[in-house]
Amino acid sequence: MSNLPKAVFINEEGPREGFQIEKGNIPTARKIELIDALSDTGLHHMQIVSFVNPKRVPGMADAEEVVRGITPRPGVEYTGLSLNEKGLERALATKRLKVEGRIAMCASEAFLKRNNNKSFAEQEAYNHRVLSIYKELDIPVTRGSIMAAFGCNFEGDIQPAQVLTQLRQIFAIAAEHGVNIELVSLADTMAWATPLSIKRTVGAIRDVYPDLRINLHLHDTRGMAIANAFAGLEMGVDMFDASVAGLGGCPFAGHKSAAGNVCTEDLVFMCEEMGIHTGIDLEKLLECARLAEDIVGHPLPGSVMCGGSLARLRAALH
Amino acid sequence: MSNLPKAVFINEEGPREGFQIEKGNIPTARKIELIDALSDTGLHHMQIVSFVNPKRVPGMADAEEVVRGITPRPGVEYTGLSLNEKGLERALATKRLKVEGRIAMCASEAFLKRNNNKSFAEQEAYNHRVLSIYKELDIPVTRGSIMAAFGCNFEGDIQPAQVLTQLRQIFAIAAEHGVNIELVSLADTMAWATPLSIKRTVGAIRDVYPDLRINLHLHDTRGMAIANAFAGLEMGVDMFDASVAGLGGCPFAGHKSAAGNVCTEDLVFMCEEMGIHTGIDLEKLLECARLAEDIVGHPLPGSVMCGGSLARLRAALH
Repeated sequence: MSNLPKAVFINEEGPREGFQIEKGNIPTARKIELIDALSDTGLHHMQIVSFVNPKRVPGMADAEEVVRGITPRPGVEYTGLSLNEKGLERALATKRLKVEGRIAMCASEAFLKRNNNKSFAEQEAYNHRVLSIYKELDIPVTRGSIMAAFGCNFEGDIQPAQVLTQLRQIFAIAAEHGVNIELVSLADTMAWATPLSIKRTVGAIRDVYPDLRINLHLHDTRGMAIANAFAGLEMGVDMFDASVAGLGGCPFAGHKSAAGNVCTEDLVFMCEEMGIHTGIDLEKLLECARLAEDIVGHPLPGSVMCGGSLARLRAALH
Repeated sequence: MSNLPKAVFINEEGPREGFQIEKGNIPTARKIELIDALSDTGLHHMQIVSFVNPKRVPGMADAEEVVRGITPRPGVEYTGLSLNEKGLERALATKRLKVEGRIAMCASEAFLKRNNNKSFAEQEAYNHRVLSIYKELDIPVTRGSIMAAFGCNFEGDIQPAQVLTQLRQIFAIAAEHGVNIELVSLADTMAWATPLSIKRTVGAIRDVYPDLRINLHLHDTRGMAIANAFAGLEMGVDMFDASVAGLGGCPFAGHKSAAGNVCTEDLVFMCEEMGIHTGIDLEKLLECARLAEDIVGHPLPGSVMCGGSLARLRAALH
């Protein structure tokens, strides 16, 4: 229990995760409404759009319009996801987003091919190209990321050794370009992780890179996200991606197989109740979760927005 | 990690938890259909009905009919919940249920009053009376239970010291009647627990009663149940109540604020994926979860029944 961090940093990904996958046309103004409401909760980092092919992801065709429409709050960083040079150019062109350099890897080549249409070699080449662009534009690079870090629907289980291989490649690429990687994000992209595999993989990384900061990106397809987050906390992980109301997931099966990231307000509830500081106003965040449900027009999987906070119950008792 | 048990025992409570709370008239035959299907999954213990006032809980008015209708499977124990002598008599009269003696306590007197209509003193007197009945009928008593062991909507947080007070009373009552308590069940009745409070309370009990077996009864109202179960496993807890598909919860808010026990198949998935033996066939259990949804006629909160097992994905890869 002693390893629990004193504070955690939460990256909100609900707008990007959720709106890219929802069926039906969500009006741009309502996307902006949610982002602006989230800006007022104490969150300091939000991924709000993705710059992807609008033919493949029609829900993100209005990405530029969303970015133009928000009212940025001082102290909050807004980012957009890009998977290739074209996406990076679009993100830079908005001039309103924080563009974070990163070396992006995937532990499963089969998934990389499906998701990014690249082989391992092509992904490595892409990382070299994009690092040159970052350098040209003076964009600092401090982050690596590894998709499918715990398992893959097309390759099966991913062992800690495979993650370490990816990580060594990240450091090798970084060294070639003279950049210093301080943080690696491990994504349980297809929800294969258990609390035990989280502990094993994080532990294996800690053994080799004790000072590397670790971020977890945990999908909830099999209901393990909050337990996986707790396992991460116990390993001292202090940075998580999360999705308000549990936004995201499979658009073909309604709310039921919702497979967004770990629900932000449930994660904030767990942390704060365990004495871990998040800097986020849970009651305001619960309002955002209800707003998100109103916007998508169907129930979302978050629990605390239904069960209510304990702070509110405690206040009523005194 | 080293404390994870090699095997866990799961008490299925879905039929009792779920059918007592569902709105609308669920036909007795369909309740029986689910119980018989669950009997075929490898589960060894099931609480299938409660013997309570049919005016207060109309969904359990057919309890005797359900018990008469099932096809008991050898090796499976079927139980019914009773909160008073009248309920105990009804359970005994069925002659088909395993009647388990227990000393039932509650860490919150305010909740005891609301749920069982008894003060602490009345509950103690009830335990003495019921222990005499057990003795008369040769029903062994090896179990204590503590409701609201982590917090109460009407009293607030419950500290480990309060649970230990209840536990000492259980052992004192047991001593007076010459019975030996081997197991205590801690119920997070109103979903106040976090993984940290689970560890603290279980740890506090372990310090004083190292050989006492602990069972956890975890409600999911705030989405913490699976993380709380993992925290219990890490403390060596090897017995859990659980509810297929997450049956149970609030009938007034649809599936959203579902607050049944931790979902059985999600718990089985987590355990088996971490190498903890449950003796339960996950694929058969997933079929039961889908059957439960069909019976109640609305989505239920279980995740793995939507996301699918990993065993099936692995098999498809090889």
